[in-house]
Amino acid sequence: MRIGELSRKTGVPVPTIKYYVREGLLPAGELTSRNQASYGEPHERRLQLIRALADVGGMKVAEIADVLAAVDDTDRPLHRVLGSAADRMGRSDGTRDDAESAAARAAVTDLISRRGWRTHASNPAVTDLSEALAALARLGHGAFAELLDTYADAAEQVAHADLEYVDRQMAVEEKVEGVVIGTVLGEAVFSSLRRLAHVDASARLYGARE
Amino acid sequence: MRIGELSRKTGVPVPTIKYYVREGLLPAGELTSRNQASYGEPHERRLQLIRALADVGGMKVAEIADVLAAVDDTDRPLHRVLGSAADRMGRSDGTRDDAESAAARAAVTDLISRRGWRTHASNPAVTDLSEALAALARLGHGAFAELLDTYADAAEQVAHADLEYVDRQMAVEEKVEGVVIGTVLGEAVFSSLRRLAHVDASARLYGARE
Repeated sequence: MRIGELSRKTGVPVPTIKYYVREGLLPAGELTSRNQASYGEPHERRLQLIRALADVGGMKVAEIADVLAAVDDTDRPLHRVLGSAADRMGRSDGTRDDAESAAARAAVTDLISRRGWRTHASNPAVTDLSEALAALARLGHGAFAELLDTYADAAEQVAHADLEYVDRQMAVEEKVEGVVIGTVLGEAVFSSLRRLAHVDASARLYGARE
Repeated sequence: MRIGELSRKTGVPVPTIKYYVREGLLPAGELTSRNQASYGEPHERRLQLIRALADVGGMKVAEIADVLAAVDDTDRPLHRVLGSAADRMGRSDGTRDDAESAAARAAVTDLISRRGWRTHASNPAVTDLSEALAALARLGHGAFAELLDTYADAAEQVAHADLEYVDRQMAVEEKVEGVVIGTVLGEAVFSSLRRLAHVDASARLYGARE
């Protein structure tokens, strides 16, 4: 198809498509004449993925490029690619060097060994989690750490459902893309559901009292 | 305390503190002489909150200003303020006008009535959730919607734990701030835990096979 039809099908403006090609996010179309290129179903699909990561996942172009590089890297063992794709989705800017960060990191190490999770301390999610707990402690909410196991139970349920879905639905070459999609879009799904459940719980608790 | 001490205690550089005061995120200090101001514990706490929303929550200054405005609005019924603070944390840019969006919105309406959640269709989280599901459907992952109830179960567990924590820990005037903190930092906590649980589930499923 021509670039205009690709644009119409995906809702992505033509100049934006050209920008994605220049930035290496999208392969160039096949040249059919000196100034016309033809695009296929893989382009359409890749554009839908880029849009989902940008619009729903709130990711920047450079972050999307990193994630797509992990998706396209077919040489590494599957669970390592999955891990590295997930790592690139963290937001950590590193650890602060104070008592709260140290205590939070110890609590996270403890949690991981208590749950028997097969991961180790260099996982960026460990830093993200530690920094979130440290920020809570600095705000006087160190007791929030008491909820960690309730949160971890819920996270395990969701993660197991995700992995079963990926394993059941997809051919191997689609799995990496599936996990990337699931990690980013699944996070948006969970975040919205949590906000809805908050509104419901709050209406039940405080709506009646006021 | 002077601004230098406030900076040292919170790790926020002096020019950044002055910027927050100019932008209305932080109240000005009390003038003690013509060019010296004194800051107290409320300033320190507010700065920790701003930093947590920015560093852990990844929020921009304008978004933080919106959330703090909801925190400081003491005139509205509590559960309405909580709802409106949560609303401002969504990422939706509105709905696309296609079959996937319409079907996703119907699925979300159905889910809310099936779970008996006390919320309604104008909640921005409904749009965010619908758009995430529509993006999945456009990528050929409409079947992901089968996981919705597993996700909703997990979201309810987390939301109930959050609300119990807020209700138990805090005086009324602290509750709004507590919910804002819990919504933003709790999301970062859950997101990290989900990524850790993914790595664990993936190592168990694929690590052995390869």
